[in-house]
Amino acid sequence: MSGWLAIAGLGPGSDDLVTPQVQAALAEATDVVGYIPYVARVPDREGLTKHASDNRVELDRARHALEMAASGGRVVVVSSGDPGVFAMASAVFEALDTGPDEWKTFDVRVLPGITAMLAASAAAGAVLGHDFCAINLSDNLKPWALIEKRLRLAVEADFACAFYNPRSKARPEGFGRALDVLQSVCAPGRLITFARAVSTPDEVLQTVPLRDATPEMADMRTVVLLGSSQTRMIARPDKAPLVYTPRRVPL
Amino acid sequence: MSGWLAIAGLGPGSDDLVTPQVQAALAEATDVVGYIPYVARVPDREGLTKHASDNRVELDRARHALEMAASGGRVVVVSSGDPGVFAMASAVFEALDTGPDEWKTFDVRVLPGITAMLAASAAAGAVLGHDFCAINLSDNLKPWALIEKRLRLAVEADFACAFYNPRSKARPEGFGRALDVLQSVCAPGRLITFARAVSTPDEVLQTVPLRDATPEMADMRTVVLLGSSQTRMIARPDKAPLVYTPRRVPL
Repeated sequence: MSGWLAIAGLGPGSDDLVTPQVQAALAEATDVVGYIPYVARVPDREGLTKHASDNRVELDRARHALEMAASGGRVVVVSSGDPGVFAMASAVFEALDTGPDEWKTFDVRVLPGITAMLAASAAAGAVLGHDFCAINLSDNLKPWALIEKRLRLAVEADFACAFYNPRSKARPEGFGRALDVLQSVCAPGRLITFARAVSTPDEVLQTVPLRDATPEMADMRTVVLLGSSQTRMIARPDKAPLVYTPRRVPL
Repeated sequence: MSGWLAIAGLGPGSDDLVTPQVQAALAEATDVVGYIPYVARVPDREGLTKHASDNRVELDRARHALEMAASGGRVVVVSSGDPGVFAMASAVFEALDTGPDEWKTFDVRVLPGITAMLAASAAAGAVLGHDFCAINLSDNLKPWALIEKRLRLAVEADFACAFYNPRSKARPEGFGRALDVLQSVCAPGRLITFARAVSTPDEVLQTVPLRDATPEMADMRTVVLLGSSQTRMIARPDKAPLVYTPRRVPL
């Protein structure tokens, strides 16, 4: 009896952004494991057991999934977006790294998905169309000083930036601190895009100059994209503007 | 007669990484436009005209696609990976930004895809599992000094890094220069992964300590992932190692 574990990305929300590879893994699975709203996206069927758990129990969830695979289960851990971008893949490997040797004997695969920042960049145009960085603004697992250092260096490098987890109930003030840093070191006209619930019926996109950005523009379902100094906006009559970063950087 | 333009990502190579959204756009298209090997991935069918062009003519290709959409065509510009990551989306918006006003009147959509770095990170484990950056190492459109500045700042920020276009026939020495910079500023044991032709039958993954990396390990089909200082490797008996960046950064 040979089990396996797949760590799969469901994309940002719309079913037409789920890859056939992930659909195939879900069709073969005996068990699906994940955060409640992500597990809810997987249709019920005979032979499939769903194990939904709350946020902030990632390591427990990872160990549970590994135990079931070790017992012969065909287990899919689901994340939204891409499981390798601020999601479950690293948590599973942390558990595997420190767990029993048996967990190193069965197949473990990561099945990539469309991550929120790339869906958001596409919805707005091509905000991340040149060199860019992705920063998780949550200070649950790293010191705030490191976040602030990375923000300053990212601006010095003139990267476009994607910010995940700008706000949560537990950290209502975190994004305001990040905005303060950015507004102190960037030109006031730098473009910033707030992309909420991308690819779902609740999708809202808003692009403003950094000087006009406020903490309330982001919530738990928002990914924030900061343009580089080169990022431009194309106005169109009766259509949403297009925000893009050119490929060319002048000397 | 209302045309539209979609800029679509075909993913890194495997058909099971093409999203249903992109498949649907291709099924409705009258014209497909792109670099020769990407257009070749789209199956022939009646009513579909394929316009394949060589590398390095991105702006001409973009203008041609916009002209056809303006004339009522349902046009899909195809990129490999994600069209918004060092691919055709920015080129199309550069053309649109400086083109006739008519080009601002029809629908233009970007359809995201699985970009090479995230497929490579998944194939290796979760190399980009925490804060990271993506840098195009080609100096065709930006000065080498800016690339070197970004490399040094990315290391100072302790980002994991993805490097696109490490080598080409026209720039055989570029990646060696980048490696020299990285080897001069990173610890010699920092992990670096060379991911070639990810998700295709030619896929090869190789992870070594930075001290052992050589320019020849990358070619035109390679994306290179540099771990952060925290990135770890899990050895497994009779299986490929897993390379991952933990979510937690110690104080």
